[in-house]
Amino acid sequence: MLNFNRLSQQMRFIIEIDKLKHIERQSALTDGTRQENDSEHSWHIATMALLLSEYSNEIEIDLLKVIKMLLIHDLVEIDAGDTFLYDALGNSTKAKRENDAAQRIFGLLPDDQAKELHSLWLEYEARESPEARFAFALDAIQPLLLGFQNKGWSWKKHGVVKSQIVDKKEPIKIGSRDLWEYAHTLIKKAVEEGFLIDDGNC
Amino acid sequence: MLNFNRLSQQMRFIIEIDKLKHIERQSALTDGTRQENDSEHSWHIATMALLLSEYSNEIEIDLLKVIKMLLIHDLVEIDAGDTFLYDALGNSTKAKRENDAAQRIFGLLPDDQAKELHSLWLEYEARESPEARFAFALDAIQPLLLGFQNKGWSWKKHGVVKSQIVDKKEPIKIGSRDLWEYAHTLIKKAVEEGFLIDDGNC
Repeated sequence: MLNFNRLSQQMRFIIEIDKLKHIERQSALTDGTRQENDSEHSWHIATMALLLSEYSNEIEIDLLKVIKMLLIHDLVEIDAGDTFLYDALGNSTKAKRENDAAQRIFGLLPDDQAKELHSLWLEYEARESPEARFAFALDAIQPLLLGFQNKGWSWKKHGVVKSQIVDKKEPIKIGSRDLWEYAHTLIKKAVEEGFLIDDGNC
Repeated sequence: MLNFNRLSQQMRFIIEIDKLKHIERQSALTDGTRQENDSEHSWHIATMALLLSEYSNEIEIDLLKVIKMLLIHDLVEIDAGDTFLYDALGNSTKAKRENDAAQRIFGLLPDDQAKELHSLWLEYEARESPEARFAFALDAIQPLLLGFQNKGWSWKKHGVVKSQIVDKKEPIKIGSRDLWEYAHTLIKKAVEEGFLIDDGNC
């Protein structure tokens, strides 16, 4: 017998998260025509997880868990907004804003699912498990891939320089040394191509 | 030792599929401000899969497989475009256009992954497995959820009436009788609210 109340509660959550499609990120699409939004980004990195799990530092990895994390990792931004990685002030208040958002948004679900998703999100944020570390690596490398293709659209707009990117992206290696090697090569190429300024600090 | 050639080939595919963010669908977002695109839709239904698998007709279902299918099911539209469900002419040429697209797009990947994704897509299209049928149910119900919220934006624009929707959406029940029950209730409510015209043919 269908529990219509439970299903209606799940559907309310599903309607609510449609708002993720309005949360604009600082990254532009590969062709530089517009900024991407959080739902597009989440789809992109979840699909990357299907293809790149062989590069995880840890061989035994639960791919379904990685993908779940990636699909939901930005939902808190529906309330908290996107905080640009290189915005120091925004990042100082980010944790509080996102924790409040997680309470409200995951709290829309039936208790069992609210707990599961909230706990997955906390695990992702803490980077404590192999899955969280690999998911983080994908989340961090994707804007680099876009940025190289669109010739540094966002780096130029915000005056981001090489040492800042290396500083923020080097933790990719905690999830995947291979992906960090690729990312590092791409950063050097971006400097050679003139997409990114080398400030000589690394 | 990192196989840089293999990783570069995978990255070329990852860059190529960024184009999915430009493929506009006929459905508008819940607030009716704009149409959604294929990557947003794919994210939405993959996330729905996490929450709604308990409603699959078959209890034993491989959730990871369902989500993989949903993440990649629309990639062929990068070449073939989105074909509106109620466009008879467009639907008569859809299979050929999409098969060609699948050859090209999945063919960008290393052979093993090209085969895996192409075969997943064919399985999804054929609705032959429990996973494909459940994935189809999610793909079919999501535009209804959006359509009800935006007061029938797309139905009004294209003159779609109740019997057409029932005809196209009833196959939801091959994947989930419960989701079809929910969808059917929503269709009736959409008529009551004046979002959808009842042509009396069902």
